[in-house]
Amino acid sequence: MLINHREEIKSLQPYKPGKPIEDVKREYGLDNVIKLASNENPLGCSEKVKEKIKEGLNNLAIYPDGNATKLKEALSKSLNVSVEEILPSSGSDEMIDLIVKAYVNKGDEIIMADITFPRYIQTAEMMGGIPVIVPLKDYTFDLNGMLEKITDKTKIIWICNPNNPTGTMVKEEELVKFFDKVPENVLIIYDEAYREYATKDDYPKDSIKFIKNYPNILVMRTFSKAYGLAGIRVAYSVGNKEIIENINKVRGPFNVNSLALEAAITALEDQDFIKKSYDLNLEGKNYLYEEFDKMGFFYPPSETNHIFVNVERNGQEVFVELQKRGVIIRPMGGTFIRVSIGTMEENKIFIEKLKEVLGK
Amino acid sequence: MLINHREEIKSLQPYKPGKPIEDVKREYGLDNVIKLASNENPLGCSEKVKEKIKEGLNNLAIYPDGNATKLKEALSKSLNVSVEEILPSSGSDEMIDLIVKAYVNKGDEIIMADITFPRYIQTAEMMGGIPVIVPLKDYTFDLNGMLEKITDKTKIIWICNPNNPTGTMVKEEELVKFFDKVPENVLIIYDEAYREYATKDDYPKDSIKFIKNYPNILVMRTFSKAYGLAGIRVAYSVGNKEIIENINKVRGPFNVNSLALEAAITALEDQDFIKKSYDLNLEGKNYLYEEFDKMGFFYPPSETNHIFVNVERNGQEVFVELQKRGVIIRPMGGTFIRVSIGTMEENKIFIEKLKEVLGK
Repeated sequence: MLINHREEIKSLQPYKPGKPIEDVKREYGLDNVIKLASNENPLGCSEKVKEKIKEGLNNLAIYPDGNATKLKEALSKSLNVSVEEILPSSGSDEMIDLIVKAYVNKGDEIIMADITFPRYIQTAEMMGGIPVIVPLKDYTFDLNGMLEKITDKTKIIWICNPNNPTGTMVKEEELVKFFDKVPENVLIIYDEAYREYATKDDYPKDSIKFIKNYPNILVMRTFSKAYGLAGIRVAYSVGNKEIIENINKVRGPFNVNSLALEAAITALEDQDFIKKSYDLNLEGKNYLYEEFDKMGFFYPPSETNHIFVNVERNGQEVFVELQKRGVIIRPMGGTFIRVSIGTMEENKIFIEKLKEVLGK
Repeated sequence: MLINHREEIKSLQPYKPGKPIEDVKREYGLDNVIKLASNENPLGCSEKVKEKIKEGLNNLAIYPDGNATKLKEALSKSLNVSVEEILPSSGSDEMIDLIVKAYVNKGDEIIMADITFPRYIQTAEMMGGIPVIVPLKDYTFDLNGMLEKITDKTKIIWICNPNNPTGTMVKEEELVKFFDKVPENVLIIYDEAYREYATKDDYPKDSIKFIKNYPNILVMRTFSKAYGLAGIRVAYSVGNKEIIENINKVRGPFNVNSLALEAAITALEDQDFIKKSYDLNLEGKNYLYEEFDKMGFFYPPSETNHIFVNVERNGQEVFVELQKRGVIIRPMGGTFIRVSIGTMEENKIFIEKLKEVLGK
């Protein structure tokens, strides 16, 4: 070791990206490869967004508005909160990093589930925080288990609802009971990246009221999933001014690029696209449920655009075999895989190839 | 204070963005406002980049290639270094943050100039590093002064060449003498954001050889300046594999957006655009020099696309008065302002309005 790096980064694993589609095609000599691995919107994004981006191409040399004024105003209007309660970020990935950088001291405890979004644990470790893992119970967040783990060192509790990768949800009623019991000096991050896909009546449709009732909750939302803008990186968080102000201090001055700022505003306006995406997702989910049922496979009910399913065979092997046949999914440890819900055509190809791999 | 934030962020000032052009127009009832405040390329960017981005609009829903494979390959070829020695980032702003997050422990000393890019000091403070400030000497880096400040706690030395905001440069010969004397366990960050504008023969044109000769140097370059891509956030660093690997561990998985990745590759190929930008900048610089000379104003010679000039009047007042007249520049403390070199038309308007403000 030439130059001493921070001790905290020693055990960090650098991000290992999946194989690009082009590489999979080349490696296996395939003409068509479908990717159901990253919970992307198979419809793409709103056509209006593409038009808006074209309009912005003459301003690429100009720095983005570092204050994201227009996007904040659009969100403020649509959510009925003040602009001081909103902070856009370069995807939720960046926001998670910023939250931890603003709040986590060495030795602070961070409570999270065992099977949830991996950035929560990686960023905690980066800042010397101590991850306190509460295993899921019946594939769902064990909120009582989380409450039991709160100590005077607890700084953050991460709730992903609906959860990635299990697709499961916590009901509004349970959530509110939980919020009531968390001390006010503990930051609750409520990550609802998949909210637009939730179908159940008891899913908390309006999370903004949480931030009105609890000053220690930060709500995270993204344009990467239902809005179909994963490629250009834009998300936002909503919470009380003090939290937003602290996180704002650690962000870079131009953290959201200018095309993403414009795209997000336009995407927000096109709720027809979100409805279309929701409908297609529901159709695909029901189809996949039916096929999994026929094969006798267990899956927890999903409120997202992906399904966590037990294929009763080593998931890594199934992943490799599917990839050879032009379908990319995500192995999840043990006999589980996570498959994103695609177009109906993609879903059917996935089922066909899965049957082939499993000899069904 | 509701939730205890990190002690280190207490004194941080959140980024205060300049007024958007639209706001200046509205506030002062102006039809035309020119911005010579952020060292942006007045020619915009290569037309080929715009075409490339249009092609990418159907893939917005797909996550960027987290490995930036194609951009790394293009850079590898053009710079004759391996892909393991390259790391793209979301602008240099992000890279500075990542470097500090990978390397700076509480109490580590970070050596930098007093008048240089402000992100160096802000990020050091964010991680509890101790900024060790070495004042410029004749508006240029005092390399011997920096050497004298090295202790066993020194972690990083920041060299910005040519320097922002003074526009001044350090010669290759001096730089190499300096590099020879810095201990190998001290990381030297060599930020050459403005390299494409440098004119002098003794400016180090080929910095890549530094990383071949010194394992503790990281070279930072950006597409935000001469390449005209500030709006979509893309930069890269080159250094030995160990440094790159450590920084890679702390970045987010999709830190550079997909349009920026494509734009950067295309921009690299269009060196005619860089030549055109260089020529226009040189013409503008000579014109502004001449006008400043006529007014008897001092400016250190600039190797960049901006001039640091002593207008012999309070810079903040001059800034406000120019803004009222539709010209945005940057006040620099005392009687100095920094003006970006624009199109010849913009430069002439700036001089006209400056004379008006100063009663010349």
